[in-house]
Formats: sequence, C-alpha cells, structure tokens
Amino acid sequence: MAKTKKQPRPKAETPKGFRDYFGAEVSERAEMLQKIAAVYHRYGFDALESSAVETVEALGKFLPDVDRPNEGVFAWQEADEDGRGDWLALRYDLTAPLARVYAQHRNDLPTPYRRFAMGPVWRNEKPGPGRFRQFYQCDADTVGTASMAADAEICAMLADTLEEVGIPRRDYLIRVNNRKVLNGVLESMGLADDAERSAAVMRTIDKFDKVGETGVRELLGKGRLDASGAYIDGVGLSQAQVEPVVKFLTSGKRLANVGGYGVQRVQGEIGSEVSPTNYAPFKNEELSKAVLTGTLAELRRIVESSSEGLQGVAELEQIADLLAAQGYGPDRIIIDPSVVRGLGYYTGPVFEAELTFDILDEKGRKRQFGSVAGGGRYDDLVKRFTGQAVPATGISIGVDRLLAALREKGRIGPAATGPVVVTVMDRDRMADYQAMVGELRQAGIRAEVYLGNPRNFGNQLKYADKRNSPVAIIEGGDEKEKGIVQIKDLILGAKIAENATLEEWKERPSQFEVPRDQMVAKVREILDGQGG
Amino acid sequence: MAKTKKQPRPKAETPKGFRDYFGAEVSERAEMLQKIAAVYHRYGFDALESSAVETVEALGKFLPDVDRPNEGVFAWQEADEDGRGDWLALRYDLTAPLARVYAQHRNDLPTPYRRFAMGPVWRNEKPGPGRFRQFYQCDADTVGTASMAADAEICAMLADTLEEVGIPRRDYLIRVNNRKVLNGVLESMGLADDAERSAAVMRTIDKFDKVGETGVRELLGKGRLDASGAYIDGVGLSQAQVEPVVKFLTSGKRLANVGGYGVQRVQGEIGSEVSPTNYAPFKNEELSKAVLTGTLAELRRIVESSSEGLQGVAELEQIADLLAAQGYGPDRIIIDPSVVRGLGYYTGPVFEAELTFDILDEKGRKRQFGSVAGGGRYDDLVKRFTGQAVPATGISIGVDRLLAALREKGRIGPAATGPVVVTVMDRDRMADYQAMVGELRQAGIRAEVYLGNPRNFGNQLKYADKRNSPVAIIEGGDEKEKGIVQIKDLILGAKIAENATLEEWKERPSQFEVPRDQMVAKVREILDGQGG
Repeated sequence: MAKTKKQPRPKAETPKGFRDYFGAEVSERAEMLQKIAAVYHRYGFDALESSAVETVEALGKFLPDVDRPNEGVFAWQEADEDGRGDWLALRYDLTAPLARVYAQHRNDLPTPYRRFAMGPVWRNEKPGPGRFRQFYQCDADTVGTASMAADAEICAMLADTLEEVGIPRRDYLIRVNNRKVLNGVLESMGLADDAERSAAVMRTIDKFDKVGETGVRELLGKGRLDASGAYIDGVGLSQAQVEPVVKFLTSGKRLANVGGYGVQRVQGEIGSEVSPTNYAPFKNEELSKAVLTGTLAELRRIVESSSEGLQGVAELEQIADLLAAQGYGPDRIIIDPSVVRGLGYYTGPVFEAELTFDILDEKGRKRQFGSVAGGGRYDDLVKRFTGQAVPATGISIGVDRLLAALREKGRIGPAATGPVVVTVMDRDRMADYQAMVGELRQAGIRAEVYLGNPRNFGNQLKYADKRNSPVAIIEGGDEKEKGIVQIKDLILGAKIAENATLEEWKERPSQFEVPRDQMVAKVREILDGQGG
Repeated sequence: MAKTKKQPRPKAETPKGFRDYFGAEVSERAEMLQKIAAVYHRYGFDALESSAVETVEALGKFLPDVDRPNEGVFAWQEADEDGRGDWLALRYDLTAPLARVYAQHRNDLPTPYRRFAMGPVWRNEKPGPGRFRQFYQCDADTVGTASMAADAEICAMLADTLEEVGIPRRDYLIRVNNRKVLNGVLESMGLADDAERSAAVMRTIDKFDKVGETGVRELLGKGRLDASGAYIDGVGLSQAQVEPVVKFLTSGKRLANVGGYGVQRVQGEIGSEVSPTNYAPFKNEELSKAVLTGTLAELRRIVESSSEGLQGVAELEQIADLLAAQGYGPDRIIIDPSVVRGLGYYTGPVFEAELTFDILDEKGRKRQFGSVAGGGRYDDLVKRFTGQAVPATGISIGVDRLLAALREKGRIGPAATGPVVVTVMDRDRMADYQAMVGELRQAGIRAEVYLGNPRNFGNQLKYADKRNSPVAIIEGGDEKEKGIVQIKDLILGAKIAENATLEEWKERPSQFEVPRDQMVAKVREILDGQGG
C-alpha cells in the first residue's frame, strides 16, 4: 500500500510565457490606452468589450498564422451532463470576436458600426525572450461599409493617435498598400485559383525585407538553406511564374528609392537598417503629387492584365486623394507597394504604421524601431456567420511595442515617484501618523504610514528608498512635545550623498524642521522643487 | 462511406454565461475604475497586473465556495512533448494571484507591500439571470504586516473610494467585525479543532439574515425544509452546542438594535428590509463612544472563555480607535458583530461595505441596495508557497454592483451623447465632408461622416438617431455654392416633434443656416445649449 506522502509546496511561478506587470508598467499602459480611446471616441468610434472566452466554433480557423490553423489557442471542453459540452477558447485577437458580435447584434447596431476595443489576447505559442502568451491589443474597426473613406479615416485616425500618445510627426510613417494589387500579380502568375500556393507566395513576399531578391527566388522555387543550416522547402513555382513577383517587388523597391509617395529612401534595401535621415519627406507639394501619380501609373502597368489589380490601384488613388484633401501629406501617410501584412484574411487596402527613428539593438547597431500597428480591409469575416458578405476595415495597435517606443523616446517614465512616507517613531501614536497622511492626501499628495515593524529606524528609511519616496516625515517624542516635525528631502539627500562637497551640504540642507501645522505646505514646496 | 457534408454555419453567440458590453457600459466602468485607482494610488498602493492564466497548482484549492473545492474554474492541460503538461486555469479572483506574486517576487517588493489590482476574473459556475461567468473585480491589499493600522487604513480608503466615485456620505456604511470573535464562539461550543463543522457553522451564521433564529437552530441541528420543499441536512450539533451561536447572533441583533457603533436600526431583523431612515447615525460623539464601549464590553463577555475571542475584541478596539482619530465616525464605519463574510480563509478583521439607500425590487418592494465590497485579513495564503506565514489584509469591490448603484443614484448615464454626424449629400465630395469632421474634432467635438450608402437621405437621419447624435450637418450642392451649411439641432428637434405646439416651433427653429466658416462655432453653441 502506498504511504500518504506530504503534499509538496506549490511553485510560486507564472505559467511559462506569462508575466506580471508592476506599478508604473501598469499605469503607463492605462494612461496610453486612455489617450488612444479619447482619439477613437472623438472620431465617432464606440467602445466594445467582449468576453475573453469565445466558443471555438465562433473563433473559427482564422488564426493569424495560417501554417497552423488548428493550433495557437488555449482551448478546453465544457463539462455538460454527458461530459461533452462546447469547446471554448481564449480569444487570440479582437477581430474574430468583433465578427461574432456584429453577426449576433447586427439588428441593434448602427450601420456602419465604428467600434474600438482594447484588452488582452492570448496565443498558445512557444514563448521566447520578450514574446509572451498574453499581450494587449488595441483595435478600431468600421464594419458595414465598402467606402474607401472608411479606410482613409482609419489611416488619419492612426496618425492622430500616434501623435496624441507622444510620437512626434516625422518619427512615424503610415504605409498603405492594397491586397488587390498583390492579387493582380498572383493572377498574372496564373495562381488566381490556387489558394494554397497564393498564400505561400504572399508569405514569401512578406519575407522580402529579410531574405532579399535571391531569397524570394529560392523560396518561390525549389527551396532555400536558411542561416541556421536548415533547408526550407520552396513553393515549387516555375521560373516564368516567379518572374512577375520579383518584378513587382523590385519595382516596389525602385519606386521607394525614387520616392514612393513623398519619401525618399536614400540608401539600403527596403526594411533594412534605415536611419531617419534616409526618410526625407518632400517639401514640394507638386513634386510629391507627381511622384504619387508616377507610383500609381507604374503599379497600373504591372497589373494591367488583371481587373482586380486595376481596381486595387484605383482604391489606392481614392485613399490618397481623401487623405490629401484632409491635409495628411506624405510626411505622415504614404502609398508603399512593399507593404503586405501577413494575415490571410485581408481583401483590400492594408496599412502599417512604422516608427522611423533609430534604436540600438542588443549588439549596439542602429536599427529602425519598426512596426507598431497594422491592419486593413477584410470583407469575409462576418460572412461565416450570416452568409452575407459584410465589408469591414480596421487597425490594430501593438500596445507593448508602442509603449516600448514611448519609453525609448523618453515620453514616459522613468520610474514614477513613490509616496511620501510618514515614519513611525512611537508605535503607540499610530493615530497621529495616520492623521498626517490623511492631511497630505487631502492636499492631493500621495502618502503612506510605514506599516512594518517600526523598531529599526534604518529599515524605515530603506523602505522609503525602495518605495522611491520623495520625502520622509519624522515625528518622535521630542518633536511632538515641541509641536514640530522633521521633513527629509530624500531626492536631494540622495544627490548630496552622491555628489556634493561638504560646503554644498551645509548650504542646502536636505532636512527641515517645521511647525506641525506647516507640514503640508513644506512638503508641497519640496515636491514642487523636486519637479523642477 | 460517409458523404462529405457541407459545414453548417457557426452560431454567432457568446458562450453561455458570457456577455458583450457596449459603448457607455465600457467607458463608464473605465472611468469609475480610474477614479478608484486614483484614490488607491494616493494611499500609496501600487498597481499590479498579473496574467489571467495561472497554474492550477498556484491557484490551489482556495475557491471561495468551500462546498466545491475542486470545481468552479476554467482549466485545461498544457500539451508538452509527452502530452502531459501543467494544468492551467483562469484566475477566479485577484487574491490567489497576489499570494503567488508576493511569494515569487518577495525579495524585490517592499515590505509591507501595498498593491491594487483591477480586471476580469472567471468562475465556471452555472450562469443565471444577471450572473455571469466573467466579471470585474477591483482589489486593494496590504501584504506583510500584522498591524491593525493596515486594516483601519483599508476601511478608511474604502470610505474615501465610495465617496470619490459618487456615493454620498450616509448612503453607505462600512461594517467591521473580526473572525477571531466568531472563533471564540466556536471555541466555547467545543468546535475549535473541528475544521469541517466550524466551517459549516460559519456558513450558517452567514445565512442568519435570510433564515432567522429558527432557521439557524434547524440548520445547526437536524436540518431544515427550505422554501422550495427540499430538505437541507443539518450540521448535527447538540442543543447545548447550538446555544452559544444563537446567543451571539441575538446579542449581535440586540446590540445593533440599541445602536451598534453609532447607528440605530429602529425596526426589522438585521439584514431584512431596512430603509435609510432606520439608519440614524448618532450626532452626539460622547453617546457614540459610549455605545462602542458597550458593544465591545458585551462581545468580551460572550467570548470570555476564549483567548482568541478576546484578542479579536482587542483588535476591533484598535481599529475603532485608529479610525476615530482620523475622523472616520459612525456615519461611515461601524463595528457590527453580525458581519461574517462567507470566505473560509479570513483569519482576523472582516469588512463589508453596504449601500443603505432603497431600491425597488422586481415586485416593486423597497429593498436596501446591499453589499458592494467586502474583505478582511487572511494570514495563511502566502504560507502555501513559502512555508512562512505572511500577514495580509485587503478589500475587493464588486465593480458591476457598484456601477449599478451609481446608475441607480443617477450619478452616471443616461446614454452618453453620440457624435455630430456630417451627412453626405454628394458622394463625390467626400473629401469636403471629411474636412468638416476634421475641423470639428480639432475643436474637441466628437464627429463623424456618414459612411453608409448616401442615396437615401432618410436613412442618414435614422442613422444619426440610432447614434444618439446631438447635431447633424448638411451641405448639398446649393449650400456649397452659397458657401453655407445647414445645422440641425437633433435634440431640440426631437423635443419639438414630441411636445411643441406650432407656435413654439416657429419661435425656436431646430435648423440653422450659417456660413461655412462659422460651422464649428455654431455647433459649439448648440452643444452648449443642449448641455444646459
């Protein structure tokens, strides 16, 4: 018989690929999302919050990575009486739930329906460094209109949003392309009815930035030995089929090099290390217009045998005209044929917001920050439920990447200031100390009493240090008797301890003795001084 | 051989027990949570956001409803190479994750650690009307101190929070009791070492409000036939054992009737229909103090044979003294022996915030709104992980109930105002209409262009109606030529259509013709007028 074994202690760990967020990490994200929500709201978009859990049936097979249509979600089966209930899953994005919501509530919702949503999504993928299985998305979509005005509006709103949260103009660029143009290329390759190989071509085009022209030729043809030595099977296209793709991609490259819609990439491959100086927005509006016209004409020539391709070029022209009329010039939004977007479900315009300033990578090399948002038109998602095609278009912001960018630019952080700490000199007079923090809070000052064991005063100051406190307050028996308090400026104190000579220390004391009834005023004064 | 059947369409439905939140429902909750976070932050609490997913091992068996320790969560097993990975689950509250976070990060966190957390939690329970399987919680806890000052602080902060979000003083009451006092009663019953029956007694005490003295006698003894005719097994205690519980409960009742700490319940059973007039806070501070002293003396007599019970009374006294010193009188926080709190894990003080105003129930009867927050001290949760007892205390706000209360009091809603709608009279001039909404948004006015099919103008006005728009703007070819726009005041228009006589209509037109360059100013003027 088995002995009863003592239960081992549970491990205090998040599941693999999950993490905790503390203090400023949480509040900075919340503030950024508030600002984004305010812009979306001003544009007439309404908030929507669907639940984290959906039926697997409703989520469908629209996983972003079409290589693994059945994997990638956290799913489980409901227990019912027969033990065989519905399969449920955590949402993997905010678009699939929107399609379900719109199909379910379409009779009560306005048409078109503009909605925004922000919240966590979950992916059951192999975690890696900086790659988590729960992360935030922040989406805005317009459902129920085929008008290109909806797509143009999304692009303009995205530009406004980036500026609102703190990315200055010329530090970002929104690039617009159209899937119909890409489909025009596929059509000219004779792949119009071959969904599987079309998707493979699309994914390969998306890799152009990484593998270059030679890589694309290999991946579309027989296959390719990658950097790690692994052999990647090719799509198996003939030389004649591969040619239009390469022509399109290198045309795109050439277009970008001569200017795209208003920007010049002075050097380097598309998507490679491009420094901000390489983006030189045209000052001359006429020239900018001429370049756009040239770009569109070039695209038209490439897809001339495809009516879908030509329609795509016409849609790009409409978007460009609407944006130009609203004053969104090429310093903010450009037409760029090299944009693909990986997701299979886009059916028209696609957008990508890229931050154009440099950061240093882990090896100290300059790199562009890269993409922080993407989206496009998807006309088929709602059809799954209702049988009717419902046109829709939208954008998704990568919340964590945008936050990282704002930190990089010094727009948020460093570590927010901690509370004023009222120390405990006499544990029987806790009520006095509580009264002090009460007064400070009344004045809008973040404050707390030390609640640990007060015996060791050094521990109290160490605590204040760990809390990143700007000010500590001390009232022992002597002070109480004299009706005064001691106020320590901890920020100045830390500076003096680091840098100051003895003379400076004498001139600028970091501790002040003030009458008890002037405590709040003095703390306010010190905090204001620290802020300056 | 089976025929390949056409896949049926997926159902566009949330899983059972889940729901969607639209527009104002989302933004009102977000605003309330922001206000709460601001109070918590001012008190020195730091934000924490842990992931929705935890290992089942870390969550443990601390489900709130101890009747079903193994159920109630949404759980699934991770797939690893052998197909036998960790069991993961959605968090069912914010306290179990806090215990895991504190155990995991305790060397990096300040001690004591004050943290707040807000977000959804999930319960795999049978859904019912108004009972959902995903809902919001909003918690604040202090980990790492046994000081009653931490408990008093939580109560004071809860009072400030309720007032900050819009519950006026005297419309709420925070009731404080102590589990050690209840344990003292159990000890005097001879159940100190019988965890199972102790828990059963605690649950029965918690039902006192519903079943009354007779019901408690039956439930603690042989059992009880409930209203539906079902027989509920009793705890099986002897008459001698039941007596101290009844004495305690009825003493509690008598105490409450003579005043509790500063309030009088003039009529009715505790917890039964009590109207606000029944809560008459003492104006006389001396009397209030005398009643408190009397309450505590009475409790001391009831648990006099139990050292734990006496310690509980002493702790209540400390909390009462600290709160009195900070000016939190019996109009906000009272000591009330009838508070139990259902959760098994509380080990000391327990708190409950109750809204004292009346609402009408579905049958039109007056009822008190009831509890919106609860919490207490739990010293054993972290010990599961580390083996060391870590004292902790905290509060959880029922976000949806508090929101419902604010709606009840008219503090939020009704339906927020929709955007200004710019109608489309000439679909080729979409750029002009986009420019209009651009100007309005620049002025901080929520605005959108109609993006549906513009052919039927009636549909555009119906859309504006569905959007709850305050103003519609019209610029057809004639207006464009004359350099003017038509501005319709839709709120006034609706009022006139409902109520006005012809004369009034003539005096107050609801449509205005203004020069194009005065559009923004006129819209601003109309919106300001509507707000008044």
